[in-house]
Parts: sequence; structure tokens; C-alpha cells
Amino acid sequence: MLFLARMEVSIPRDIDADELQKLKDAERARAHDIQRSGRWPHLWRVAGRYANVSVFDVESVDEVHELISSLPMFAFMDITITPLATHPSSLA
Amino acid sequence: MLFLARMEVSIPRDIDADELQKLKDAERARAHDIQRSGRWPHLWRVAGRYANVSVFDVESVDEVHELISSLPMFAFMDITITPLATHPSSLA
Amino acid sequence: MLFLARMEVSIPRDIDADELQKLKDAERARAHDIQRSGRWPHLWRVAGRYANVSVFDVESVDEVHELISSLPMFAFMDITITPLATHPSSLA
Amino acid sequence: MLFLARMEVSIPRDIDADELQKLKDAERARAHDIQRSGRWPHLWRVAGRYANVSVFDVESVDEVHELISSLPMFAFMDITITPLATHPSSLA
Amino acid sequence: MLFLARMEVSIPRDIDADELQKLKDAERARAHDIQRSGRWPHLWRVAGRYANVSVFDVESVDEVHELISSLPMFAFMDITITPLATHPSSLA
Amino acid sequence: MLFLARMEVSIPRDIDADELQKLKDAERARAHDIQRSGRWPHLWRVAGRYANVSVFDVESVDEVHELISSLPMFAFMDITITPLATHPSSLA
Amino acid sequence: MLFLARMEVSIPRDIDADELQKLKDAERARAHDIQRSGRWPHLWRVAGRYANVSVFDVESVDEVHELISSLPMFAFMDITITPLATHPSSLA
Amino acid sequence: MLFLARMEVSIPRDIDADELQKLKDAERARAHDIQRSGRWPHLWRVAGRYANVSVFDVESVDEVHELISSLPMFAFMDITITPLATHPSSLA
Amino acid sequence: MLFLARMEVSIPRDIDADELQKLKDAERARAHDIQRSGRWPHLWRVAGRYANVSVFDVESVDEVHELISSLPMFAFMDITITPLATHPSSLA
Amino acid sequence: MLFLARMEVSIPRDIDADELQKLKDAERARAHDIQRSGRWPHLWRVAGRYANVSVFDVESVDEVHELISSLPMFAFMDITITPLATHPSSLA
Repeated sequence: MLFLARMEVSIPRDIDADELQKLKDAERARAHDIQRSGRWPHLWRVAGRYANVSVFDVESVDEVHELISSLPMFAFMDITITPLATHPSSLA
Repeated sequence: MLFLARMEVSIPRDIDADELQKLKDAERARAHDIQRSGRWPHLWRVAGRYANVSVFDVESVDEVHELISSLPMFAFMDITITPLATHPSSLA
Repeated sequence: MLFLARMEVSIPRDIDADELQKLKDAERARAHDIQRSGRWPHLWRVAGRYANVSVFDVESVDEVHELISSLPMFAFMDITITPLATHPSSLA
Repeated sequence: MLFLARMEVSIPRDIDADELQKLKDAERARAHDIQRSGRWPHLWRVAGRYANVSVFDVESVDEVHELISSLPMFAFMDITITPLATHPSSLA
Repeated sequence: MLFLARMEVSIPRDIDADELQKLKDAERARAHDIQRSGRWPHLWRVAGRYANVSVFDVESVDEVHELISSLPMFAFMDITITPLATHPSSLA
Repeated sequence: MLFLARMEVSIPRDIDADELQKLKDAERARAHDIQRSGRWPHLWRVAGRYANVSVFDVESVDEVHELISSLPMFAFMDITITPLATHPSSLA
Repeated sequence: MLFLARMEVSIPRDIDADELQKLKDAERARAHDIQRSGRWPHLWRVAGRYANVSVFDVESVDEVHELISSLPMFAFMDITITPLATHPSSLA
Repeated sequence: MLFLARMEVSIPRDIDADELQKLKDAERARAHDIQRSGRWPHLWRVAGRYANVSVFDVESVDEVHELISSLPMFAFMDITITPLATHPSSLA
Repeated sequence: MLFLARMEVSIPRDIDADELQKLKDAERARAHDIQRSGRWPHLWRVAGRYANVSVFDVESVDEVHELISSLPMFAFMDITITPLATHPSSLA
Repeated sequence: MLFLARMEVSIPRDIDADELQKLKDAERARAHDIQRSGRWPHLWRVAGRYANVSVFDVESVDEVHELISSLPMFAFMDITITPLATHPSSLA
């Protein structure tokens, strides 16, 4: 079951540089883990923005929420989710 | 080079039923052609709407515009395009 | 798995009165069928509008799209869907 | 009488960790109290967001405002309320 | 219990002049009836628009929806409703 | 001459508790004064929000601006004003 | 007392050419009358649009609504009004 | 003096095919004339839409409005204009 | 050449009271200067808001940008500009 | 391949004056470099705002993202990108 997510990142200016680096490292590690599990098949950068467009492949709404809210930078992102159904003209 | 497209379809009520069926058949055939060419790798239905989310893989902005405007139902769709760049955390 | 749907109805003025009545009857019958199947547990009227707020309980995104697009008045409705996850403070 | 509420939570970054934990505990306790009273029959998480969709069952507009503004995190939430009427096609 | 309603009127151009006059007469008569019942205490014109701002005083959400949807021009109006609670600084 | 005002209140988090209490007391006192003068006939709470809907009865646009900008919490409010004309169907 | 009005004009396509010419002539004549009365001191075209920005100088909200709704093309315009107060830094 | 214009085209469905072709030919001819005069230095297609982004180089606001409203398809376009000033970091 | 400007002012809370007073004095002095030069013929307060509606009369887009960005409070204002052309029905 | 970018700049108030000057100098230097490379052919100021409208000429979406995100003030800008295709009526 697929969900499209658009995530806009907004880092607070008063965050400590070390803390931010750790946060980014943790974010990347977690992103890699979820991708390796096969549940985050697509992750693209929105050109010109600190934002991404993602597709998640999960078993339930709870699962997509758990994955996204497990991201270390979840508190700094504004996220909108669009549920995706099978398209009758898709060959995939 | 990837472009995300969201297409909202709005069929006029006064269209003839036969004309509409031909239009839908032509739309599907053209969608299949483009998919088979490898330039429309993802086509999903937006749940609850007569709309789709698509990803196009093309060589240029001109090419993505030509593909989309070649769709028989182009005149009945409101389309927004988001250019997608490589994401540094993507494993793909 | 729950999905919140908001449906705004917009009936074209040029529809024949008999056709409209049949459409409304069919819509109500289909709505009753889906409710009886347990997959449409909540259906409320938005006060002051020809619109409803609904909750669907389904197995997948495809299923919620199939249910909604099977409604006879689907073509006359503007629908937005919000996927609902379990809330940690909910006692339900 | 039912009211749909959508609550978007926004925690200030400069809040003390202990204070925040107390606030969350108090919020959960209050949410449980209201649910047990039967006046908050539905509480769902909006997938991907620190937000919820709720349904309140109250005797008056004043009552729904009192319940919501009694939540310890009220000052950190942006809340919109939609009054819900009986739907003629609902079997409930 | 008070509800604020904003009603924007949009008359279709193809309506017959006689039919429109009857509709307006019926609308006015119904508006007078509801006002006389005490349930529509305020009715103002939004300056520069074919629109009104109203306050309804009713016993329930169902009642405000029934009153508004009983207006002969209901199908030609876009209506938004805001539930109003008692304000602690109001002397009324 | 009537003006509808919607006021959304947003208190900065870093305000001193005593200062805030004084501000609220001053706001209430000023609101009472204006109401007693007959120029603020309606003041309602928007359910679920730190916001109000108000009607002012004044001699001029300058007067409504002076009243509103004299409120001690003016700097913390986002206010929109809608000028109200007599409605031809109003019995008031 | 001044009110800023922005008027967006939208002429239906099915209007008869003669009728439209009469309407435009009547609109211009009425606009001239109101300007000559001193109550419509400014009338500008929004560059690139069939729209205008106007300033009305009237005695009351009712008067500005009467003037605007007396325009022959009132039914084809979407109008928003902003009440203007004296600015403390204005030398006018 | 430069003005950015975004023009969204919306062709009515009931227009006669011959009339539409004449309109498009006239539009193209007029666009060529203005470009040749040096007053329309940039004209781009918005990818995926029947829309363009343009830059006009004119002597006055009146001139840009006259140019744009002289386009044969002006009545079928929704146009927004952004005035452009010299940028201090521009090398042009 | 006329440009309509709407300026919304937003003063940061942490600004020093003396600095703010100097800023306001400087703003007023600069506003008076520009008005006296004949290039800021209209300056009105938006009722109920810390905002103004202005009309500038200048020779170019660069000039209107220079005037507005020369205001001492420029950094605290959100400004939108609408270019105004001559209206064919204006008697001015 | 052309991309239109609109960049809105928002400088945090707490930034040190020296740091800000260095940032602006670095921004200007980088802007000059990219312009000299031929990849940023147009850079205009949006009149009345701390914002610009730009056109980039690049080989790919990745390249436009790399250019824009290499700007020293990238973190302080809100940027939207519109892909531009060849317009059939353009003489350029």
C-alpha cells in the first residue's frame, strides 16, 4: 500500500551545530534503514527547497505514521500525506 | 531527469458518451505507449479523486511538456509539475 | 484502517429531475450497502452545506478508493481523504 | 450534538523538558477523563503529523469550547471546528 | 446556542426571470418566518457583495442545518458556519 | 453603521506572567467600557479558538479603527473587518 | 469616509453582443454619474486584468453598498471592500 | 521597465473550431508583432500547462496593459503581473 | 505612473523601546518627505490593522522600489504592489 | 533548459551585523560567479519586496538545485521553481 509524502524541513536557527550534525547523521541512518527494509522505495529532493517527495510502501496507515514519526527530524518537518491507489492505466 | 506531476481530471458534462469513450481509450493507449518507452515510470491514482500522481523520466523540460500535452485528455486536466533532484540520503 | 473523507456535492443545474431522483435513490442505496458491510462506520452532514464528513474502515487504500468511486454521485463530488492512525491517548 | 475538531499541535522549542513531560502527562490524563465521560467518542492521529481529528458529543457550543480550552496543551494547538448534523443516509 | 453563517449567493444566468422572482419572494418569506420565530436574530448584507452575514439562535446543530437548508435559495448559496460560544468579557 | 470584526489572539510565550495578567485585566476593562458605550453590541467567542467575532456600531471607519486599536491587546491580535450594510430581508 | 474596492469583472460568454454593448454603455454612464457626484474619487485599471481598484467617498456603509450594487454590471463582478481610516502619517 | 506576466489560458469548450483556429492564428500574429517591436523579450511555456511566463519591456504601466489587452485571447486568459526592478547583484 | 501598495507592519517584540521610537520617528519623517515630493499621493490606514494602503506616483518600477525600500521600517513590512493603469471610464 | 525561480529572502533578526555583511558579500560573489558561467541569465528584484525573480539555464534538475543550494543565503530563502519549456509563439 503506497503513500506519497511531501516533507518540508525547517531547522531552528538556535540549534547547536554539533547537535544539528548528530541529528542529520541520525536522520540519514534512519532513512537508510527504512529504505533497506523496502518500505521507502522512493526519496527525491524537491528542486530549490529543503524538502523531499517520498513514497512509502507499508501494510497500514499506522505503519506509515510510525515510520515517519520515527525520523529524528520529525519535529522539524511539515508533512502532508496522500494515499495512492492503483491506477487502471498503469502498466506497473 | 525526474518530474513529479499531479493531474486533476475534469470531464465536461456535455461531452457525448461515444466521444468520451474514444477519448478515454485514446488516453489509455497513449499512457501505455509513454510508459512502455520508459519515460513514465510511475502512475498512481489519488485515492478518492479523479486524479493521478505521476513521475516522468525525461531528457529535458521540453520533453516532459511534450509528453503531457500529447495526452488526449490534456485539455481536461489541471496539471502541476514539481522538478525532482537527487536526494543525498537516497539509496536508489 | 481508517480514512476520513470530506465530500462536497455539486449537482449540475441541467440534470433532468427524474434522472436526479434516480441518482439520489441509487446513492442512498449504495451508501446503505456500504454502511451495512461495516466499511463506512460514520457518515455526518456538514452543517449548512451539501457536504458530508465520513469515516471509512477498510483493508487498503485501493479499497477506500473503490468504495468511494462506486458511489453513483462520485462524478459530482469533490473529495479529500485524510489517513487516520491510532492516537496514543485514545481509549477506544 | 457532534462537533468535528482538527487540532494541530506546535510545541515551542524553548520549553523545558520536564515541563513538557508534565504537560503531556496532564494532556493525556485530561483526554482520558473527557473520553471516559462519553463526550469525546473519537480521537484519531492524522498520519504523518503531530495532529489529531476528533469528534466531540456535547450539549452545546459552550460545552465543546469548555472541553477543548480545558486541555493543558490548548495554548499550543491550532484548532478548527466543524459542526456535524445528522445525515439523511446514515444508518447510525 | 449561536451560529454565525456567511452565505454567498450565486444565481445561475440561465434561470427564467419569473422563476427567479418567485424564488426571491419565497426566500424573503421564509427568511421573515425564521426571523419572526426568533431563531435568526441578525441578518446583515456584506457591503459590495451578494452575500450576507447571519446569526442563528437554535437548540442544536441539526436545527441550524434544517433552517438553512430550508431556504429556497439554498442550492445557490455557498455557506460557511462558525459555532459561537459565550465570551468571558461580554456584558450581554 | 456596523462592522463585523474577527480577532485572532496570539500571546507571545516570553511575556511575563504578571504583565500578561495586567494586560488581560486592562483588555477586559476596555472591552467593558466600549460595550457600555453601546459601540460594541456583540462579542462572541469562536468555539475552540482564542478568537472572537464582534460587531461594532460606530459613526465612521475612523471610529471603528480607533476603538479596536485602543484595545490593550491590539498588538497581539490579527484582525479582519467586514463592513455590514442593511439587508433588504431583515426585519430588525 | 473612504472604502477601497477591488472589482474583478467576468462577462458570461453567452451574452448577446448588443446586450453587452448596452450594458457597457450603461456601466460607463453610471460610473460617470457617481464620479461627478464626488463619491467615486479614484478609479484605476489593474494592469493586465479586466479589473479595477476604486476608492469611494461616502457617508455610510449602506451608501457604498448602494452605489456599487447600482452598477449595471454588478452581477458580473466579484468585489471586495476594505474600509480605510485616516493614517497618522498622511499629510493629505 | 520590465514586468513579469503569468498568463493562464482557458478556452471555452463551446467555441467553434474555425473561430478558435482564427483566434489562435491572430494571437500568434499579434505575439510576433509585439516581440518584433522589442517589447516582449521573453515568452516561455509553463511546463505541463496551457500557460506562459512572459517578460515585457515597456515605457509605462499603461503600455503593458495596452499590449496585453490587445492580445486576441485576452478574454480567455487569467493574468497576473509582477513589476520587476533592477537587482543590485545582477550583472546584466 | 501609479502603483498601489499594501504594507502590513510586523514589529518584532524584542526591539528596544527607544530604538522603536526612533524608528517610528524616522519612518514618519521619511513618509512626509516622499509625500511632499508628490510621489506618495495617497496613504490610508487599513481599518483594524497595523497596515496601510498607499498609492505611489513615480517614473519607473525602479523608483517605486527605491522609495519603498528607503522606508526605515522596510525590513518589518510585508508589501505587495499592484501596477495601476488608466481606466477608460475614469473622469480623472 | 530553463527554470524560473522566485526567491523570498527572510533574514533572522538575531544575526550578527558582521556575519550578515559577510553573508551578503558571499551571496553577491556567488551570484556573480554563477551569472558569469552563463547559467543565471536573468536576475530581477521584485518591486517592493526583499525577493527576486530569476531564470536559470542548466543541463538538469540536479544542476539547478545544486546552483541554488550553493547560495550562501539559501537557508534564509523560500524558493519556488517553475520549469519552462519552449513556447511555440516565441521568436527567441
